[in-house]
Amino acid sequence: MPYVHVQVAENDYSDDQKRAVMKRIVEALDEEMGRAPQSTNVVIQEIPKENWGVGFETIASMWSKR
Amino acid sequence: MPYVHVQVAENDYSDDQKRAVMKRIVEALDEEMGRAPQSTNVVIQEIPKENWGVGFETIASMWSKR
Amino acid sequence: MPYVHVQVAENDYSDDQKRAVMKRIVEALDEEMGRAPQSTNVVIQEIPKENWGVGFETIASMWSKR
Amino acid sequence: MPYVHVQVAENDYSDDQKRAVMKRIVEALDEEMGRAPQSTNVVIQEIPKENWGVGFETIASMWSKR
Amino acid sequence: MPYVHVQVAENDYSDDQKRAVMKRIVEALDEEMGRAPQSTNVVIQEIPKENWGVGFETIASMWSKR
Amino acid sequence: MPYVHVQVAENDYSDDQKRAVMKRIVEALDEEMGRAPQSTNVVIQEIPKENWGVGFETIASMWSKR
Repeated sequence: MPYVHVQVAENDYSDDQKRAVMKRIVEALDEEMGRAPQSTNVVIQEIPKENWGVGFETIASMWSKR
Repeated sequence: MPYVHVQVAENDYSDDQKRAVMKRIVEALDEEMGRAPQSTNVVIQEIPKENWGVGFETIASMWSKR
Repeated sequence: MPYVHVQVAENDYSDDQKRAVMKRIVEALDEEMGRAPQSTNVVIQEIPKENWGVGFETIASMWSKR
Repeated sequence: MPYVHVQVAENDYSDDQKRAVMKRIVEALDEEMGRAPQSTNVVIQEIPKENWGVGFETIASMWSKR
Repeated sequence: MPYVHVQVAENDYSDDQKRAVMKRIVEALDEEMGRAPQSTNVVIQEIPKENWGVGFETIASMWSKR
Repeated sequence: MPYVHVQVAENDYSDDQKRAVMKRIVEALDEEMGRAPQSTNVVIQEIPKENWGVGFETIASMWSKR
Protein backbone atom coordinates (compact mmCIF):
# COMPACT_ATOMS: atom_id res chain seq x y z
CA MET A 1 0.00 0.00 0.00
CA PRO A 2 -0.44 2.53 -1.70
CA TYR A 3 -1.31 1.29 -5.15
CA VAL A 4 -1.26 3.76 -8.07
CA HIS A 5 -2.71 2.91 -11.47
CA VAL A 6 -1.62 5.32 -14.22
CA GLN A 7 -3.46 5.07 -17.55
CA VAL A 8 -2.00 6.91 -20.54
CA ALA A 9 -2.62 6.61 -24.27
CA GLU A 10 0.14 4.69 -26.09
CA ASN A 11 2.80 7.14 -27.23
CA ASP A 12 6.12 5.24 -27.44
CA TYR A 13 7.17 6.30 -23.94
CA SER A 14 10.67 5.10 -23.11
CA ASP A 15 11.45 2.98 -20.05
CA ASP A 16 13.35 5.98 -18.69
CA GLN A 17 10.25 8.18 -18.94
CA LYS A 18 8.15 5.55 -17.20
CA ARG A 19 10.72 5.07 -14.42
CA ALA A 20 10.91 8.84 -13.92
CA VAL A 21 7.13 9.09 -13.49
CA MET A 22 7.11 6.12 -11.09
CA LYS A 23 9.95 7.63 -9.03
CA ARG A 24 8.21 10.99 -8.67
CA ILE A 25 4.91 9.37 -7.66
CA VAL A 26 6.66 7.25 -5.01
CA GLU A 27 8.46 10.36 -3.71
CA ALA A 28 5.21 12.36 -3.60
CA LEU A 29 3.42 9.68 -1.54
CA ASP A 30 6.44 9.36 0.76
CA GLU A 31 6.98 13.09 1.36
CA GLU A 32 3.33 14.23 1.40
CA MET A 33 1.63 11.21 3.03
CA GLY A 34 4.46 9.34 4.76
CA ARG A 35 4.00 6.19 2.70
CA ALA A 36 7.09 3.98 2.69
CA PRO A 37 8.55 3.78 -0.85
CA GLN A 38 9.14 0.02 -0.74
CA SER A 39 5.44 -0.62 -0.11
CA THR A 40 4.23 1.67 -2.94
CA ASN A 41 3.20 -0.02 -6.21
CA VAL A 42 2.88 2.06 -9.39
CA VAL A 43 1.46 0.41 -12.53
CA ILE A 44 1.48 2.21 -15.87
CA GLN A 45 -1.07 0.98 -18.38
CA GLU A 46 -0.69 2.15 -22.01
CA ILE A 47 -4.03 2.25 -23.82
CA PRO A 48 -4.34 2.06 -27.63
CA LYS A 49 -5.28 5.55 -28.93
CA GLU A 50 -8.40 4.20 -30.67
CA ASN A 51 -9.62 2.90 -27.31
CA TRP A 52 -9.56 6.23 -25.46
CA GLY A 53 -12.36 8.71 -26.06
CA VAL A 54 -12.51 12.25 -24.68
CA GLY A 55 -15.99 13.61 -25.36
CA PHE A 56 -16.98 12.67 -28.89
CA GLU A 57 -13.47 12.13 -30.21
CA THR A 58 -10.83 9.46 -29.75
CA ILE A 59 -7.24 10.34 -28.91
CA ALA A 60 -6.25 8.64 -32.18
CA SER A 61 -8.37 11.16 -34.07
CA MET A 62 -7.16 14.14 -32.01
CA TRP A 63 -3.48 13.26 -32.38
CA SER A 64 -3.82 12.57 -36.11
CA LYS A 65 -4.56 16.30 -36.60
CA ARG A 66 -1.30 17.39 -34.93
CA MET B 1 -14.60 13.92 -14.92
CA PRO B 2 -16.39 11.49 -15.35
CA TYR B 3 -14.09 8.62 -16.15
CA VAL B 4 -15.57 5.40 -17.58
CA HIS B 5 -13.56 2.18 -17.85
CA VAL B 6 -15.17 -0.43 -20.12
CA GLN B 7 -13.70 -3.94 -20.02
CA VAL B 8 -14.75 -6.40 -22.73
CA ALA B 9 -13.27 -9.70 -23.89
CA GLU B 10 -11.30 -9.38 -27.14
CA ASN B 11 -13.64 -9.95 -30.06
CA ASP B 12 -12.23 -8.04 -33.07
CA TYR B 13 -14.40 -5.00 -32.40
CA SER B 14 -14.01 -2.38 -35.12
CA ASP B 15 -13.02 1.21 -34.37
CA ASP B 16 -16.51 2.21 -35.47
CA GLN B 17 -18.10 -0.08 -32.87
CA LYS B 18 -15.83 1.31 -30.16
CA ARG B 19 -16.55 4.91 -31.16
CA ALA B 20 -20.30 4.19 -31.16
CA VAL B 21 -20.14 2.81 -27.60
CA MET B 22 -18.05 5.77 -26.44
CA LYS B 23 -20.48 8.27 -28.04
CA ARG B 24 -23.53 6.70 -26.37
CA ILE B 25 -21.83 6.61 -22.95
CA VAL B 26 -20.85 10.29 -23.26
CA GLU B 27 -24.42 11.17 -24.31
CA ALA B 28 -25.91 9.18 -21.40
CA LEU B 29 -23.74 10.98 -18.82
CA ASP B 30 -24.52 14.33 -20.44
CA GLU B 31 -28.30 13.86 -20.69
CA GLU B 32 -28.89 11.92 -17.45
CA MET B 33 -26.30 13.52 -15.15
CA GLY B 34 -25.43 16.82 -16.84
CA ARG B 35 -21.77 15.91 -17.32
CA ALA B 36 -20.12 17.99 -20.06
CA PRO B 37 -19.05 15.73 -22.96
CA GLN B 38 -15.63 17.32 -23.38
CA SER B 39 -14.69 16.43 -19.81
CA THR B 40 -15.86 12.79 -20.06
CA ASN B 41 -13.16 10.15 -20.62
CA VAL B 42 -14.13 6.66 -21.84
CA VAL B 43 -11.45 3.95 -21.99
CA ILE B 44 -12.16 0.56 -23.58
CA GLN B 45 -9.91 -2.26 -22.46
CA GLU B 46 -9.99 -5.49 -24.48
CA ILE B 47 -9.09 -8.52 -22.35
CA PRO B 48 -7.76 -11.80 -23.83
CA LYS B 49 -10.55 -14.41 -23.65
CA GLU B 50 -8.34 -16.81 -21.67
CA ASN B 51 -7.93 -14.13 -19.01
CA TRP B 52 -11.63 -13.62 -18.27
CA GLY B 53 -13.42 -16.16 -16.11
CA VAL B 54 -17.15 -16.24 -15.39
CA GLY B 55 -17.75 -18.77 -12.64
CA PHE B 56 -15.69 -21.85 -13.37
CA GLU B 57 -15.26 -21.23 -17.08
CA THR B 58 -13.24 -18.81 -19.16
CA ILE B 59 -14.82 -16.82 -21.96
CA ALA B 60 -12.38 -18.55 -24.34
CA SER B 61 -13.92 -21.89 -23.37
CA MET B 62 -17.51 -20.63 -23.54
CA TRP B 63 -17.07 -19.00 -26.96
CA SER B 64 -15.27 -22.06 -28.37
CA LYS B 65 -18.56 -23.99 -27.99
CA ARG B 66 -20.56 -21.55 -30.12
CA MET C 1 -18.78 -9.67 -19.30
CA PRO C 2 -18.63 -6.75 -20.11
CA TYR C 3 -17.79 -4.90 -16.95
CA VAL C 4 -18.15 -1.08 -16.89
CA HIS C 5 -16.76 1.06 -14.06
CA VAL C 6 -18.14 4.60 -14.04
CA GLN C 7 -16.41 7.10 -11.74
CA VAL C 8 -18.12 10.43 -11.10
CA ALA C 9 -17.61 13.10 -8.44
CA GLU C 10 -20.27 12.99 -5.71
CA ASN C 11 -23.16 15.23 -6.73
CA ASP C 12 -26.32 13.89 -5.03
CA TYR C 13 -27.33 11.86 -8.07
CA SER C 14 -30.69 10.18 -7.60
CA ASP C 15 -31.17 6.43 -7.97
CA ASP C 16 -33.25 7.19 -11.06
CA GLN C 17 -30.36 9.07 -12.67
CA LYS C 18 -27.99 6.20 -11.90
CA ARG C 19 -30.41 3.61 -13.26
CA ALA C 20 -30.89 5.67 -16.43
CA VAL C 21 -27.12 5.81 -17.04
CA MET C 22 -26.79 2.06 -16.37
CA LYS C 23 -29.67 1.27 -18.76
CA ARG C 24 -28.19 3.33 -21.60
CA ILE C 25 -24.72 1.78 -21.16
CA VAL C 26 -26.21 -1.74 -21.22
CA GLU C 27 -28.20 -0.85 -24.35
CA ALA C 28 -25.12 0.64 -26.07
CA LEU C 29 -23.04 -2.51 -25.45
CA ASP C 30 -25.95 -4.70 -26.61
CA GLU C 31 -26.76 -2.77 -29.79
CA GLU C 32 -23.21 -1.77 -30.82
CA MET C 33 -21.22 -4.83 -29.68
CA GLY C 34 -23.83 -7.57 -29.29
CA ARG C 35 -23.19 -8.03 -25.59
CA ALA C 36 -26.11 -9.71 -23.81
CA PRO C 37 -27.66 -7.30 -21.26
CA GLN C 38 -27.96 -9.88 -18.49
CA SER C 39 -24.19 -10.47 -18.54
CA THR C 40 -23.27 -6.75 -18.47
CA ASN C 41 -22.22 -5.31 -15.10
CA VAL C 42 -22.18 -1.53 -14.58
CA VAL C 43 -20.75 -0.13 -11.34
CA ILE C 44 -21.04 3.58 -10.50
CA GLN C 45 -18.49 4.87 -8.02
CA GLU C 46 -19.09 8.31 -6.51
CA ILE C 47 -15.84 10.02 -5.52
CA PRO C 48 -15.65 12.81 -2.88
CA LYS C 49 -15.04 16.12 -4.71
CA GLU C 50 -11.90 16.82 -2.67
CA ASN C 51 -10.45 13.54 -3.92
CA TRP C 52 -10.72 14.31 -7.65
CA GLY C 53 -8.15 16.60 -9.23
CA VAL C 54 -8.23 17.88 -12.80
CA GLY C 55 -4.90 19.54 -13.52
CA PHE C 56 -3.96 21.67 -10.53
CA GLU C 57 -7.46 22.04 -9.13
CA THR C 58 -9.87 19.73 -7.32
CA ILE C 59 -13.47 19.39 -8.41
CA ALA C 60 -14.45 20.67 -4.96
CA SER C 61 -12.62 23.91 -5.69
CA MET C 62 -13.98 24.22 -9.24
CA TRP C 63 -17.60 23.61 -8.20
CA SER C 64 -17.34 26.01 -5.26
CA LYS C 65 -16.91 28.84 -7.79
CA ARG C 66 -20.17 28.07 -9.59
CA MET D 1 -21.30 -9.52 -9.08
CA PRO D 2 -18.66 -9.89 -7.63
CA TYR D 3 -16.02 -8.61 -9.99
CA VAL D 4 -12.36 -9.41 -9.28
CA HIS D 5 -9.51 -7.69 -11.14
CA VAL D 6 -6.16 -9.47 -10.72
CA GLN D 7 -3.06 -7.59 -11.91
CA VAL D 8 0.21 -9.51 -12.19
CA ALA D 9 3.46 -8.77 -13.98
CA GLU D 10 3.86 -10.73 -17.23
CA ASN D 11 5.58 -14.02 -16.50
CA ASP D 12 4.48 -16.53 -19.17
CA TYR D 13 1.70 -17.91 -16.99
CA SER D 14 -0.03 -20.86 -18.64
CA ASP D 15 -3.77 -20.96 -19.23
CA ASP D 16 -3.93 -23.75 -16.65
CA GLN D 17 -2.31 -21.54 -14.01
CA LYS D 18 -4.74 -18.72 -14.79
CA ARG D 19 -7.75 -21.05 -14.67
CA ALA D 20 -6.56 -22.46 -11.35
CA VAL D 21 -6.32 -18.98 -9.81
CA MET D 22 -9.77 -18.03 -11.19
CA LYS D 23 -11.30 -21.26 -9.81
CA ARG D 24 -9.92 -20.71 -6.31
CA ILE D 25 -11.07 -17.07 -6.24
CA VAL D 26 -14.60 -18.08 -7.31
CA GLU D 27 -14.63 -20.81 -4.64
CA ALA D 28 -13.41 -18.40 -1.95
CA LEU D 29 -16.17 -15.87 -2.71
CA ASP D 30 -18.75 -18.66 -2.81
CA GLU D 31 -17.72 -20.39 0.42
CA GLU D 32 -16.76 -17.31 2.47
CA MET D 33 -19.31 -14.76 1.21
CA GLY D 34 -22.03 -16.86 -0.41
CA ARG D 35 -21.54 -15.35 -3.86
CA ALA D 36 -22.92 -17.57 -6.61
CA PRO D 37 -20.07 -18.80 -8.86
CA GLN D 38 -21.92 -18.16 -12.12
CA SER D 39 -22.24 -14.46 -11.29
CA THR D 40 -18.57 -14.00 -10.31
CA ASN D 41 -16.28 -12.43 -12.91
CA VAL D 42 -12.50 -12.74 -12.55
CA VAL D 43 -10.25 -10.80 -14.96
CA ILE D 44 -6.48 -11.35 -14.99
CA GLN D 45 -4.46 -8.50 -16.43
CA GLU D 46 -0.79 -9.18 -17.23
CA ILE D 47 1.32 -6.02 -17.00
CA PRO D 48 4.68 -5.60 -18.81
CA LYS D 49 7.48 -5.83 -16.21
CA GLU D 50 8.86 -2.42 -17.21
CA ASN D 51 5.48 -0.89 -16.40
CA TRP D 52 5.29 -2.06 -12.78
CA GLY D 53 7.29 -0.22 -10.15
CA VAL D 54 7.65 -1.24 -6.50
CA GLY D 55 9.30 1.62 -4.65
CA PHE D 56 12.18 2.91 -6.76
CA GLU D 57 12.63 -0.20 -8.87
CA THR D 58 10.69 -1.84 -11.67
CA ILE D 59 9.84 -5.53 -11.60
CA ALA D 60 11.86 -5.86 -14.83
CA SER D 61 14.93 -4.66 -12.97
CA MET D 62 14.27 -6.80 -9.87
CA TRP D 63 13.70 -9.98 -11.87
CA SER D 64 16.75 -9.38 -14.07
CA LYS D 65 18.93 -9.87 -10.96
CA ARG D 66 17.49 -13.32 -10.21
CA MET E 1 2.86 -7.36 -6.94
CA PRO E 2 0.29 -8.92 -7.52
CA TYR E 3 -2.51 -6.51 -6.84
CA VAL E 4 -6.09 -7.85 -6.57
CA HIS E 5 -9.12 -5.57 -6.53
CA VAL E 6 -12.31 -7.32 -5.36
CA GLN E 7 -15.58 -5.45 -5.88
CA VAL E 8 -18.69 -6.76 -4.12
CA ALA E 9 -22.06 -5.18 -3.40
CA GLU E 10 -22.42 -4.04 0.23
CA ASN E 11 -23.85 -6.88 2.29
CA ASP E 12 -22.65 -6.43 5.89
CA TYR E 13 -19.70 -8.75 5.42
CA SER E 14 -17.79 -9.29 8.65
CA ASP E 15 -14.07 -8.60 8.97
CA ASP E 16 -13.60 -12.35 9.38
CA GLN E 17 -15.29 -13.03 6.03
CA LYS E 18 -13.13 -10.41 4.33
CA ARG E 19 -9.94 -11.77 5.90
CA ALA E 20 -10.89 -15.30 4.83
CA VAL E 21 -11.34 -14.20 1.20
CA MET E 22 -8.05 -12.27 1.27
CA LYS E 23 -6.21 -15.28 2.74
CA ARG E 24 -7.51 -17.66 0.09
CA ILE E 25 -6.65 -15.26 -2.76
CA VAL E 26 -3.10 -14.83 -1.42
CA GLU E 27 -2.74 -18.63 -1.11
CA ALA E 28 -4.06 -19.17 -4.65
CA LEU E 29 -1.54 -16.72 -6.16
CA ASP E 30 1.26 -18.25 -4.09
CA GLU E 31 0.49 -21.90 -4.86
CA GLU E 32 -0.63 -21.52 -8.50
CA MET E 33 1.65 -18.70 -9.68
CA GLY E 34 4.49 -18.64 -7.14
CA ARG E 35 3.74 -15.10 -6.00
CA ALA E 36 5.20 -14.34 -2.55
CA PRO E 37 2.38 -13.70 -0.05
CA GLN E 38 4.03 -10.66 1.53
CA SER E 39 4.10 -8.86 -1.81
CA THR E 40 0.44 -9.58 -2.67
CA ASN E 41 -2.08 -6.78 -2.06
CA VAL E 42 -5.81 -7.57 -1.92
CA VAL E 43 -8.28 -4.67 -1.72
CA ILE E 44 -11.99 -5.30 -1.14
CA GLN E 45 -14.29 -2.53 -2.28
CA GLU E 46 -17.93 -2.66 -1.10
CA ILE E 47 -20.27 -0.95 -3.57
CA PRO E 48 -23.70 0.43 -2.56
CA LYS E 49 -26.39 -1.91 -3.99
CA GLU E 50 -28.07 0.96 -5.84
CA ASN E 51 -24.80 1.62 -7.67
CA TRP E 52 -24.38 -1.86 -9.17
CA GLY E 53 -26.42 -2.79 -12.22
CA VAL E 54 -26.56 -6.25 -13.81
CA GLY E 55 -28.39 -5.90 -17.13
CA PHE E 56 -31.42 -3.69 -16.61
CA GLU E 57 -31.69 -4.19 -12.86
CA THR E 58 -29.73 -2.98 -9.86
CA ILE E 59 -28.59 -5.37 -7.16
CA ALA E 60 -30.69 -3.33 -4.71
CA SER E 61 -33.78 -4.20 -6.74
CA MET E 62 -32.83 -7.86 -7.18
CA TRP E 63 -32.08 -8.40 -3.49
CA SER E 64 -35.25 -6.59 -2.40
CA LYS E 65 -37.26 -9.43 -3.98
CA ARG E 66 -35.53 -12.12 -1.93
CA MET F 1 -5.91 11.77 -20.53
CA PRO F 2 -3.96 10.66 -18.50
CA TYR F 3 -6.05 9.20 -15.72
CA VAL F 4 -4.38 8.29 -12.41
CA HIS F 5 -6.14 6.24 -9.74
CA VAL F 6 -4.41 6.38 -6.33
CA GLN F 7 -5.58 3.90 -3.70
CA VAL F 8 -4.45 4.42 -0.11
CA ALA F 9 -5.69 3.03 3.19
CA GLU F 10 -7.79 5.53 5.16
CA ASN F 11 -5.52 7.55 7.42
CA ASP F 12 -7.19 10.95 8.00
CA TYR F 13 -5.25 12.60 5.19
CA SER F 14 -5.95 16.33 5.02
CA ASP F 15 -7.19 18.01 1.85
CA ASP F 16 -3.84 19.78 1.69
CA GLN F 17 -1.97 16.46 1.66
CA LYS F 18 -4.24 15.14 -1.09
CA ARG F 19 -3.85 18.30 -3.17
CA ALA F 20 -0.08 18.14 -2.77
CA VAL F 21 0.03 14.55 -4.05
CA MET F 22 -2.27 15.43 -6.98
CA LYS F 23 -0.10 18.44 -7.89
CA ARG F 24 3.12 16.43 -7.92
CA ILE F 25 1.56 13.66 -10.03
CA VAL F 26 0.29 16.20 -12.58
CA GLU F 27 3.73 17.84 -12.68
CA ALA F 28 5.48 14.48 -13.13
CA LEU F 29 3.27 13.53 -16.10
CA ASP F 30 3.73 17.00 -17.60
CA GLU F 31 7.52 17.20 -17.21
CA GLU F 32 8.38 13.54 -17.89
CA MET F 33 5.76 12.63 -20.52
CA GLY F 34 4.56 15.99 -21.86
CA ARG F 35 0.98 15.46 -20.74
CA ALA F 36 -0.95 18.74 -20.45
CA PRO F 37 -1.93 19.37 -16.81
CA GLN F 38 -5.49 20.45 -17.61
CA SER F 39 -6.20 17.09 -19.24
CA THR F 40 -4.77 15.01 -16.36
CA ASN F 41 -7.27 13.50 -13.91
CA VAL F 42 -6.07 12.21 -10.51
CA VAL F 43 -8.52 10.35 -8.28
CA ILE F 44 -7.61 9.40 -4.71
CA GLN F 45 -9.59 6.53 -3.24
CA GLU F 46 -9.32 5.96 0.54
CA ILE F 47 -9.89 2.30 1.44
CA PRO F 48 -11.02 1.17 4.94
CA LYS F 49 -8.02 -0.45 6.69
CA GLU F 50 -9.96 -3.69 7.27
CA ASN F 51 -10.48 -3.97 3.51
CA TRP F 52 -6.81 -3.90 2.51
CA GLY F 53 -4.74 -7.04 2.96
CA VAL F 54 -0.99 -7.33 2.40
CA GLY F 55 -0.08 -11.00 2.48
CA PHE F 56 -1.92 -12.64 5.39
CA GLU F 57 -2.53 -9.47 7.36
CA THR F 58 -4.82 -6.48 6.97
CA ILE F 59 -3.52 -2.94 7.26
CA ALA F 60 -5.89 -2.50 10.21
CA SER F 61 -4.05 -5.27 12.03
CA MET F 62 -0.57 -4.01 11.04
CA TRP F 63 -1.28 -0.42 12.10
CA SER F 64 -2.89 -1.50 15.38
CA LYS F 65 0.56 -2.78 16.48
CA ARG F 66 2.26 0.57 15.97
